[in-house]
Amino acid sequence: MSEILPVPQGFRFASALARIKPTAQRPDVGLIVSEVPAACAGVFTRNKVIAAPLQLTRPRIATGRCQAVLVNSGNANACTGAAGLEVARHSAAALAAELGLAEELVAVASTGVIGVPLPLERLTAVLAPLCADLAPDQAAAVAQAIMTTDSFSKMAARRLDAAGQQAVVLGLAKGAGMIHPNMATMLGFVLTDARLAPQLLDAMLRRAVDGSFNSISVDGDTSTNDLVLVLANGAAGEAEILPGTAAAAAFQDALDAVLLDLAKMIVRDGEGATKLVRIQLRGARDAAEARQAAQAVATSNLVKTAFFGEDANWGRIIAAVGYSGAEVDPDRVDIFFDAVQVVRQGLTTGAEQEALATAVLKQPEFSVRIELHQGDGVCDYYCSDLTYDYVKINADYRT
Amino acid sequence: MSEILPVPQGFRFASALARIKPTAQRPDVGLIVSEVPAACAGVFTRNKVIAAPLQLTRPRIATGRCQAVLVNSGNANACTGAAGLEVARHSAAALAAELGLAEELVAVASTGVIGVPLPLERLTAVLAPLCADLAPDQAAAVAQAIMTTDSFSKMAARRLDAAGQQAVVLGLAKGAGMIHPNMATMLGFVLTDARLAPQLLDAMLRRAVDGSFNSISVDGDTSTNDLVLVLANGAAGEAEILPGTAAAAAFQDALDAVLLDLAKMIVRDGEGATKLVRIQLRGARDAAEARQAAQAVATSNLVKTAFFGEDANWGRIIAAVGYSGAEVDPDRVDIFFDAVQVVRQGLTTGAEQEALATAVLKQPEFSVRIELHQGDGVCDYYCSDLTYDYVKINADYRT
Repeated sequence: MSEILPVPQGFRFASALARIKPTAQRPDVGLIVSEVPAACAGVFTRNKVIAAPLQLTRPRIATGRCQAVLVNSGNANACTGAAGLEVARHSAAALAAELGLAEELVAVASTGVIGVPLPLERLTAVLAPLCADLAPDQAAAVAQAIMTTDSFSKMAARRLDAAGQQAVVLGLAKGAGMIHPNMATMLGFVLTDARLAPQLLDAMLRRAVDGSFNSISVDGDTSTNDLVLVLANGAAGEAEILPGTAAAAAFQDALDAVLLDLAKMIVRDGEGATKLVRIQLRGARDAAEARQAAQAVATSNLVKTAFFGEDANWGRIIAAVGYSGAEVDPDRVDIFFDAVQVVRQGLTTGAEQEALATAVLKQPEFSVRIELHQGDGVCDYYCSDLTYDYVKINADYRT
Repeated sequence: MSEILPVPQGFRFASALARIKPTAQRPDVGLIVSEVPAACAGVFTRNKVIAAPLQLTRPRIATGRCQAVLVNSGNANACTGAAGLEVARHSAAALAAELGLAEELVAVASTGVIGVPLPLERLTAVLAPLCADLAPDQAAAVAQAIMTTDSFSKMAARRLDAAGQQAVVLGLAKGAGMIHPNMATMLGFVLTDARLAPQLLDAMLRRAVDGSFNSISVDGDTSTNDLVLVLANGAAGEAEILPGTAAAAAFQDALDAVLLDLAKMIVRDGEGATKLVRIQLRGARDAAEARQAAQAVATSNLVKTAFFGEDANWGRIIAAVGYSGAEVDPDRVDIFFDAVQVVRQGLTTGAEQEALATAVLKQPEFSVRIELHQGDGVCDYYCSDLTYDYVKINADYRT
């Protein structure tokens, strides 16, 4: 990230190389600490197999208060049984002791390989140096420490400068593969110095996640470890943001924008991806069917390999809509690649238009607009293409 | 197919090169004719976008009588509007005239590219030579004519030699990509000289399809053109097979076996596939959940790339079960690669077992058995691996 992002007040960050994976070459543990206990909210994986750190963190976040977040890459601490849960608990307790906090104020998160014991001693060995290194300008180092197959670190921020509020919303995320609704192998941490009650924060986070992390797909799988946390510590010194106010609307906009920026970065960094494609589904019977249809297109391997091949293969798109379960009358479907219409009322618009569409597909980013003319349901969904490198990365991941 | 398959009596076959695609080098139209009107049944795509030939054929098959089937590769005649339906109707009518049959006794099917008009005159030009060439020993030529990205033609047969019945069940199929439940870009034609009523045939076909074509997955997409037809012409001269008899059970076994053979061939010929993997899901709460879980594993890109990488990555398997929606307690899950147990009660069985499992994955065919210990639900599901060549074939398909 070359741009300088604003950072919320009252947060400090640090990273360390713990060699969670013996071969690790760069920092693999990150720490985020708020100066005061923050209001918090979280969204967690819907996978029924839930990693140990989430088992620990979920009830703690539910209390609405959190002050420190410890994250490691290199090992998911998932499918590691009772021993894995003890590792999560011990690492959080050791950090709480080091920081002089109540244990319940510490959240933990992990990402990496499943089914391999997480070496507790390597994690605890770096806690003292981590706490000693905490600094307000080290958020980028945390964003880097949580990367796995990511090819770049992911941060986004917005200044809230509305309705008398001066505050910052900063987001860090990791994720490159397994990305799908319900947030697979995706970690997101949002930090703000605005002041909000946990209940409001929770409602706003859920709305923002639906329009961002739950509207992207790299490959359709969902993981055991995904979470998005938001911490609001009030350190900006402004009045509390209350539901239904202009300040609340401005905060929602900022939160939406930060999460959508991060989600797009994740798609753009999809394993092996060369394209970022926005699927704009219009005119479904309702919003739920719009999402069904958009998701079917965005997760179709055949559609995604056609994107990689820069082939304006609308037949695969219409076929995906057809099996999505959404109501569709093929004779009423229109399809556009950016502004180029390739299908009118279910029929090709001809070779000339298709040649123009092929030029659209040669861009690294473009939109596919699908109009069903069934109702008012709309959904925007982001996906990558499916490439040789996706296969290579995932066939070789553990070796 | 090097083996000599038995052929049911009273059927004749022919193929011709019509150059439906101008670049076609080998026969691309196939014809199957029964000497007498046959009882028939069919299973059709569940995609809401239904190709023209299926729109014509479906109500005709519903009458329970069929005598001739005309199939072309190279063009799906899908998303071609009213003109496409006229092409299907005209070609069927022209064939009926050539054969001297009622139009309603002719079924048509197509496979190939979507959204491009099917050149009617090329199809009708070969009808006279096709009818002139009809012969009992040309079934293999039809199996070849219906291939698209298939790398080999697919036929299977069983002799029915039970309960006083002498009859043959012969199946032809095509399919290599887009294969998924609800039968994508999959055509199957089953011919038998046994005598059955259409209603019984229909019930038996549905059961056989559930255990075969609806239990395979190459890439999760479903197409606009898929169908499986069965024609029973009674030419073996045996008594009618009645429901609930030993003969009916023997016929069901033969039909099941023929369709499962064909389904496995389709998976083995999955675009770019190097592995045929049987997912054996055991101990789900019920059969529906067993299918959900097996299908989630069989369609996971991450699982399938791990198979390609010969990586016994059980973490991805357990994660797929976790998001399938089936009830699962990770602490009770056992996973085996063939006879090698890699997971016991949710935990790894160690590096030695994993090394043995890696050897299992090096085989071209193996099983993954997943035991959930939740109930009696079982499901067998077949899938391929996801490879570089899958991407290559599908990125380049139309060019």
